[in-house]
Amino acid sequence: MSPDQAVVEPTADASRDASPVAWPHRHLLETDVLTWPQIVRVMDLAEEMREIFERRRPRSDALKGVGVTNLFYEASTRTRVSFEVAAKHLSADVVNVSAGGSSIEKGESLLDTMRTLEALGARVLVIRHAVSGAPYLVAREFRGSVINAGDGRHAHPTQALLDLYTLRRHMPGGSLEGRKVVILGDVLHSRVARSNLWTLTAAGADVWICGPATLLRGFEAWATAGVAGARRFTVTSDVRAALRDADAVMALRLQHERMAAGLLPSVHEYAARFGLTTERLADAAPGCLVMHPGPMNEGVEIAPDVANGPRSLITEQVANGVPIRMAVLALCTRAAAG
Amino acid sequence: MSPDQAVVEPTADASRDASPVAWPHRHLLETDVLTWPQIVRVMDLAEEMREIFERRRPRSDALKGVGVTNLFYEASTRTRVSFEVAAKHLSADVVNVSAGGSSIEKGESLLDTMRTLEALGARVLVIRHAVSGAPYLVAREFRGSVINAGDGRHAHPTQALLDLYTLRRHMPGGSLEGRKVVILGDVLHSRVARSNLWTLTAAGADVWICGPATLLRGFEAWATAGVAGARRFTVTSDVRAALRDADAVMALRLQHERMAAGLLPSVHEYAARFGLTTERLADAAPGCLVMHPGPMNEGVEIAPDVANGPRSLITEQVANGVPIRMAVLALCTRAAAG
Amino acid sequence: MSPDQAVVEPTADASRDASPVAWPHRHLLETDVLTWPQIVRVMDLAEEMREIFERRRPRSDALKGVGVTNLFYEASTRTRVSFEVAAKHLSADVVNVSAGGSSIEKGESLLDTMRTLEALGARVLVIRHAVSGAPYLVAREFRGSVINAGDGRHAHPTQALLDLYTLRRHMPGGSLEGRKVVILGDVLHSRVARSNLWTLTAAGADVWICGPATLLRGFEAWATAGVAGARRFTVTSDVRAALRDADAVMALRLQHERMAAGLLPSVHEYAARFGLTTERLADAAPGCLVMHPGPMNEGVEIAPDVANGPRSLITEQVANGVPIRMAVLALCTRAAAG
Repeated sequence: MSPDQAVVEPTADASRDASPVAWPHRHLLETDVLTWPQIVRVMDLAEEMREIFERRRPRSDALKGVGVTNLFYEASTRTRVSFEVAAKHLSADVVNVSAGGSSIEKGESLLDTMRTLEALGARVLVIRHAVSGAPYLVAREFRGSVINAGDGRHAHPTQALLDLYTLRRHMPGGSLEGRKVVILGDVLHSRVARSNLWTLTAAGADVWICGPATLLRGFEAWATAGVAGARRFTVTSDVRAALRDADAVMALRLQHERMAAGLLPSVHEYAARFGLTTERLADAAPGCLVMHPGPMNEGVEIAPDVANGPRSLITEQVANGVPIRMAVLALCTRAAAG
Repeated sequence: MSPDQAVVEPTADASRDASPVAWPHRHLLETDVLTWPQIVRVMDLAEEMREIFERRRPRSDALKGVGVTNLFYEASTRTRVSFEVAAKHLSADVVNVSAGGSSIEKGESLLDTMRTLEALGARVLVIRHAVSGAPYLVAREFRGSVINAGDGRHAHPTQALLDLYTLRRHMPGGSLEGRKVVILGDVLHSRVARSNLWTLTAAGADVWICGPATLLRGFEAWATAGVAGARRFTVTSDVRAALRDADAVMALRLQHERMAAGLLPSVHEYAARFGLTTERLADAAPGCLVMHPGPMNEGVEIAPDVANGPRSLITEQVANGVPIRMAVLALCTRAAAG
Repeated sequence: MSPDQAVVEPTADASRDASPVAWPHRHLLETDVLTWPQIVRVMDLAEEMREIFERRRPRSDALKGVGVTNLFYEASTRTRVSFEVAAKHLSADVVNVSAGGSSIEKGESLLDTMRTLEALGARVLVIRHAVSGAPYLVAREFRGSVINAGDGRHAHPTQALLDLYTLRRHMPGGSLEGRKVVILGDVLHSRVARSNLWTLTAAGADVWICGPATLLRGFEAWATAGVAGARRFTVTSDVRAALRDADAVMALRLQHERMAAGLLPSVHEYAARFGLTTERLADAAPGCLVMHPGPMNEGVEIAPDVANGPRSLITEQVANGVPIRMAVLALCTRAAAG
């Protein structure tokens, strides 16, 4: 008996979860298609996948012989590597394609590129694209599974799922019910904020979004209508009010392009008014958790001592992304297989 | 017995074909070294490799422990990924090296790069280079196999083989004998056209090449002399004559650089006069097949409805590239092993 | 019994060397931490690893399940591929991250990138960086092993180890004791020269460094003090004196940036005065060995006929890099595991 066999029972393969909750989603393009039981199913499966990632169980064969292609039109170390590592832990055949160094540069259309990659054996297409909605266009014609790894300012569903997973692991009882969670920063341009609004409100959290008024445009109306027409959240530019008694704060990356667009006077001004500092966190609940989807501009949207302090879950978020993506890959490919 | 074992007999490994046709080619630099029986041998072996690619048979061990390095001085998603997937299905160890992000930028000579990659374990070098003939230079000194993945305007042998394979699968009886095949567009700068002229005429097709006179220079003389000094083909700038009763048309990519070089008045003009449209195809034989080596400029050399229409084999060409490259890799490495 | 098992005895796994020499180094950042017995241990283990690289033994499982990430902020085909191939021969899970096409471009700090890669499963970080000392910064916080693959003008320890390994294989008796070894060229900016000074003097070689005075600044003082405060070497701009009776010469790459910085009048002038030519080698000992860390500027620091001549070990250096890196990876990861 090899050491690997000794560790695991045949029935314990994390990929063969027998959850009674149906997962009809061949693609994962946004969190808004997920019911709360489906969200919980991802969380539960990720908890098992975690044991594979942490080498406490051997690699799964869930995606053996399945071609996974990472098609990244925007650069991203963490997301690309996270999906690559996740897919390899499920024994998938991974191919990386990035906009630099590919015929994408020759102006081939997105759909032609999709068809090419499909013909070359891709059964899962993990796509990041600067244009909101691009993965939907691809998913309409792709025969396998499309996973949105971030599209424009629209959505980043696996990020929201890993954020929720990370928060639940640190909340007593694993529940966000009634917990105050603040999303702080450039909400307007953030796909991370949009995807999180769905999952956090679904989890019953008291969600506040906070930033300069120019970077919150349109969210007032949504907050009043409620997510899914029901789940209210709060919009404010008052950082103190937002952080008061907060159980968790997610700082968002400030893109320097925003200054050029005239939405902000200066980075310095932004940091002074909205940067997440130890002083500002003094008003939050004791042990308030700090998160950031990365990459960070330390000293701008978040102070270095906060980013690297004891309340920070930022590195843990990165680590949790792998089992979450393993769970999503396993569920979607199974749905695609029928 | 595992599911894999159940599917395959030990003797059925696609890589162990026992064809009586000799394959003396350690390298594949151009189609012009291939006899017709050798071309057929590639086709037949590809048919078996196809079962591995389509997961109806398990991965072959034909290249197990063999280092395959993709050395791409020109960007190409489809060709690089195609070779990568092909090599992995034969269990090769694949390394990708592209001109961006490598010491190639430091001006190291091609031969030094080859020697370096050879010393690092490459036994097969798949090379794409903007300079015609570059793979020949490399093959003179490389101890393993060199596969030309496109060199300047000279040759693209695996493209021609996959084109032939694709055509034969769609011709009644699998034969091109007497079939009218048109290569339409910028023939002058096309390595695809050159490599196809050899294989298509060898297959007995009635080959026509068609494009603006400025993009056909020199081909009249070759047509008169004949491929291999014997196999005639037709050169014309008359699209109607070319397409009349055609059984298949290959549209070629129009490089935008051609305008700058003064060879063409404008892209618009080119599209109007030589673009492959439904109207133009009306003169062709019923069910005339449409091909393109990709990436396409839709709306220039080919209309979107033609590219995506029922006669189009464009996506199938991409898919067929993998088993063709598997066959070529298996044959050449076996020849190299002696 | 499988063919693999037939070849190797269980106790013969090259990764399980039972050397009595302690290897306390979790990281390898520079050669200056290595005692002579430790250097010899790397050489001996590399000799065994060589059998795996040359396919005379099957792949080792020494790094099975270990994530190795190549983090290259400077482009380098040979070093990146060398580490990639080395890690794969030890069954590691390899991820490549380069500065182009990654969020490194977004200005994320080096430490944040390190934490991200660690969270994504990296247990070994192979890092190349333009800033001298960068790997030290990373190693202070990384929980696994950091291997310096070249940092600024500071160090390139695996290059020095493979240089020594290559020299020892060609010296009668395998000893450099009393052998004259010349390092020729831009010593000032060379991490290769610095790392080699430690190992070559430790091996007892009579080391001479030679180049234009502007490219030797500061080395006189070091030569007088001696490496490790004891091991003297010679500094000169007199090429004839340096090459006279030399047993080996390492030519260094001349960066074209040096001209712009005013350190050299012209490339032509440099080649004429310091280029390694057959004429200059006439004064060396018979059979004097020629080396270069690559990539070469042929015709500048080294003449093409010398680079490709019978005395040249340049390609062998590249090949030897793989087993050396296998040995270093195996030793450091074992030290990290405690």
